[in-house]
Amino acid sequence: MTSSSARGALPHELEDLRAFTLDRVINDGRDAHGRVVALGTFVGEQAQSLVKLNRAPLPSSTDAVRALLREVTSMRTRMPYSGGEYGYYVSRDVEIEVIAPSALTEATEAARDKLLKKHIARSSTQRLVCARETPDMYTTKHEAQYIAAIPREATNWVREILSFRAEKERLLHADEHFVMNTDPKWTTHPDCETTDRKSWRDHPSVVDLYCLGIYAKDDLRSLRDVRAEHLPALRALLHRGREVIERVYGVKAEEIRVYVHYPPQFYHFHVHYQALSAKETTGSSCERAILLEDIIDNVERDGDHYANANLSLKMGERDNLYRLFFGDDANS
Amino acid sequence: MTSSSARGALPHELEDLRAFTLDRVINDGRDAHGRVVALGTFVGEQAQSLVKLNRAPLPSSTDAVRALLREVTSMRTRMPYSGGEYGYYVSRDVEIEVIAPSALTEATEAARDKLLKKHIARSSTQRLVCARETPDMYTTKHEAQYIAAIPREATNWVREILSFRAEKERLLHADEHFVMNTDPKWTTHPDCETTDRKSWRDHPSVVDLYCLGIYAKDDLRSLRDVRAEHLPALRALLHRGREVIERVYGVKAEEIRVYVHYPPQFYHFHVHYQALSAKETTGSSCERAILLEDIIDNVERDGDHYANANLSLKMGERDNLYRLFFGDDANS
Repeated sequence: MTSSSARGALPHELEDLRAFTLDRVINDGRDAHGRVVALGTFVGEQAQSLVKLNRAPLPSSTDAVRALLREVTSMRTRMPYSGGEYGYYVSRDVEIEVIAPSALTEATEAARDKLLKKHIARSSTQRLVCARETPDMYTTKHEAQYIAAIPREATNWVREILSFRAEKERLLHADEHFVMNTDPKWTTHPDCETTDRKSWRDHPSVVDLYCLGIYAKDDLRSLRDVRAEHLPALRALLHRGREVIERVYGVKAEEIRVYVHYPPQFYHFHVHYQALSAKETTGSSCERAILLEDIIDNVERDGDHYANANLSLKMGERDNLYRLFFGDDANS
Repeated sequence: MTSSSARGALPHELEDLRAFTLDRVINDGRDAHGRVVALGTFVGEQAQSLVKLNRAPLPSSTDAVRALLREVTSMRTRMPYSGGEYGYYVSRDVEIEVIAPSALTEATEAARDKLLKKHIARSSTQRLVCARETPDMYTTKHEAQYIAAIPREATNWVREILSFRAEKERLLHADEHFVMNTDPKWTTHPDCETTDRKSWRDHPSVVDLYCLGIYAKDDLRSLRDVRAEHLPALRALLHRGREVIERVYGVKAEEIRVYVHYPPQFYHFHVHYQALSAKETTGSSCERAILLEDIIDNVERDGDHYANANLSLKMGERDNLYRLFFGDDANS
């Protein structure tokens, strides 16, 4: 083996990778969140080298984004047009989502304008912060001022699922403790209405597995309300949930994280099932996601654990919770 | 307002974005993990629309990677050459890491070959799984068969930092409880040797803030060993650590997650400090990261909590731990 490169440039003075011959892709990005690793040989070398490739972050200055928009060409539709304000595309190296409320020609101008404002507020950069919520902060702020203001109708869609009036094509399991369905956020899943369930098992998309378990009764708004009496339901959500996933998708219990969000996105207790290999993991970060196994252990140790525990509460500065914990209302 | 586009194509039949005039970048990707959102107006529309841009995942088939390697040109060095086997580059839309053990001309051929094999094993796709470790599994497998086999020399580098013989340019704080430094994984940080510390405060790179707190004594290998007697050190790591970060970097306590990995990457107790806004969050996922605030609460409640608790243990099937928990040795 000679260790001198023909180009004398390894590994620190390369201008391109033309001198690199690919032998084998040793990492397809599945377990490394998109990072692809190529094994190959540089010209003049006998020993192999590795080349790891990652997408660079998008530029974000106004000029750079303007230039980027000019470079996005040959867009292909990524999802069929739903008739709504959304359009989904993919170009060579960029995924594009267009939101044009003006496309809703049957809505009033005022309605379209309101929708635009909502999309702008939701999508704008916001500072993220974490509060450490004591039981007292929960009672006086989170519960009394925030949860109390949420209309019951906000979780109507949950009751539609629990009563099998909605999302039947996504239903994976139902018993006295919970209902489980394929989460719509699992975007690579085969079409639930048109594909045979047998084809779901070991489908390539199981690397992104994401399912939702909805607690069947109406007495748990969030993790805060969980007590010893809920242990049978929690155990069913954990063990039976994973059995269903293995049966339908062929993904084993040890390949899945099962967790709860605090604060939740909606106040009817529910559980997330996600493949460890899934690419999108922003929702599983430790300041917001709590393993169901830890929850069960804590409640087995002390049935009132979640009545007395401190819990972390991540929020954006545009969230209504932020005002209560950090804004003008923080000391009221 | 007219809702018909001059191109009649909104939002679902676009081929490129030439008809879109950028008014403002409303999300620079900081809080949305790289997703950039542009607010602007399509030709013929009076109302604004949003365009969200995301990097598409890299292709991973052999042919597609071969084609991609040809497209990577005009590579610029991202970090100075360290004299090791690594080279770091950035191209227009791809970040590249080259690992060429053959560049280590002073090593023996056998040593270079061994290093190459190690890099291949580490970087190859592997199945990720989670075990739920009981205290007994810890004692009989993890501690007796895995930790016991790690030579003391493996943490020599930690003792070098603790005795101020290494990484002095990265040192942020030292007291009787812990030493804190800027983690080398914070790759966007200004050069620690050549830049003035005053310039670190409010530097644009603080969105990726990543620091390391190393416990000063030698009696804690991991979270498993933490007991009531360690509470003063844990509290110092949490509160003083965040004070130091606010003083040096201008990042506030509520903008940081402070957590511990279990299992750790090395068996000398340490704590990670990471901005909530950081892009790379794979290490903070709930099955591997435990909030220091939760650890302190648990130990305050029960000084022997971590002697008796079940802990989740994520591993890859190439890790030595895997063999112990899932492989041929699982029942020994």
